[in-house]
Amino acid sequence: MATPDIIFYTNKASIYAERVEFAFQEAKADVTRYSIDFANKPEWYAPRVNPASKVPALVYGSPKSDPENPSPESARITESLVLLEFVADLYPDSGLLPKDPVERARVRFFIDAVSTKVSPATAAFFFRGESPDAFIATVAEIQELLPPTAQFAVGDHFTIADAAIAPFLARWELQLRNDVGKFAEGTGPGVHKELFQSERFARLQKYLANISSRESFKSSFDPGVHMVTKMFEVGLRMLW
Amino acid sequence: MATPDIIFYTNKASIYAERVEFAFQEAKADVTRYSIDFANKPEWYAPRVNPASKVPALVYGSPKSDPENPSPESARITESLVLLEFVADLYPDSGLLPKDPVERARVRFFIDAVSTKVSPATAAFFFRGESPDAFIATVAEIQELLPPTAQFAVGDHFTIADAAIAPFLARWELQLRNDVGKFAEGTGPGVHKELFQSERFARLQKYLANISSRESFKSSFDPGVHMVTKMFEVGLRMLW
Repeated sequence: MATPDIIFYTNKASIYAERVEFAFQEAKADVTRYSIDFANKPEWYAPRVNPASKVPALVYGSPKSDPENPSPESARITESLVLLEFVADLYPDSGLLPKDPVERARVRFFIDAVSTKVSPATAAFFFRGESPDAFIATVAEIQELLPPTAQFAVGDHFTIADAAIAPFLARWELQLRNDVGKFAEGTGPGVHKELFQSERFARLQKYLANISSRESFKSSFDPGVHMVTKMFEVGLRMLW
Repeated sequence: MATPDIIFYTNKASIYAERVEFAFQEAKADVTRYSIDFANKPEWYAPRVNPASKVPALVYGSPKSDPENPSPESARITESLVLLEFVADLYPDSGLLPKDPVERARVRFFIDAVSTKVSPATAAFFFRGESPDAFIATVAEIQELLPPTAQFAVGDHFTIADAAIAPFLARWELQLRNDVGKFAEGTGPGVHKELFQSERFARLQKYLANISSRESFKSSFDPGVHMVTKMFEVGLRMLW
């Protein structure tokens, strides 16, 4: 049986698409990428691929088809966390999910925390300009979840837990350093100092260093894209 | 190797614990249940089992230990959706998760919708007395996700998608019928008529009938507990 074709609808500015890109890179998966331009969204995208009109989305299945007109026979799969599990299922030997049920539960517990805490706290601080203290407190909770000495979120192997949080960490570092966000001018570098230069967050800094030294990270995170502050004007809700 | 011991900390009034009970029943799992009384919570529970002090929680691993003083060697696992995946991983032949990656993604997509839509809409309507229209609109979205003819949320086999939503459906039906909620008096039966007696929601009604005829459902859902309106006074946040 031929390996089913994977079409990955993405956009370099989407933090959620980046999670999936990261997982694909780690799995060394052979996928066809198609970038969706949100400033000028193709009319066929919602009806033919994702009714919610967001990225990331996958079309999966034979036969190989045109990304602009994918086969109706192929499956459509959306939602970044659903996609991370899907990539782990497709590539069971990638280690994206450990084999042991307890370890798998640890990965999912970490992802649950990212989903229920990190995502809302990021939106509140970066997009609505709410309290940096609440944001820093959430980051401290996440740091607490990191094992004291292991390289990654759950042990010494890269998993989908890392893919779920890494794009957030990388954007925080970049945007704070460059003072990009809806908060008061000058707030960014102060929070950057606290999170990325202080002893208090040494564990988090080491973790980001472990993540960002990976080839998969270098291929999925494009700092240039995120420094276009224009991203704050074009459908941020879509992209984050 | 002996099967590791499973201690399940639960409470019949907890909608989240009920999800896990439902999955255990479907898997015919051999577990030790320990009910946590939230009105009089044991002091050892947070330090020895779940620092978040909520149910459901599992202690998993050998050796067999006293639920009130479980072995520090055993794993602690919490969060109902993490636990559903864990039960599916422990019992791969239960069908709680299909084997096919695309089908698994469908199960997880459904669960994602329950988590991001059903849970908040239920809290808004039943606990804060917000608009019934918004609640009904969310239920309509969920009905749209149900396959037109298959018995369950994803196909004809019971999965963790069903375990994730069933406790909500059953409580809605019961509480609306009995007008139990923070909404204005008399609102419940009106919404009950719309959701559980109208043609518009026929698909949802059939789905609830399919679910509630299962033995696993009968063993995990206890209507008596939910009719104690006193539950509205004792830590609802904990229980839902």
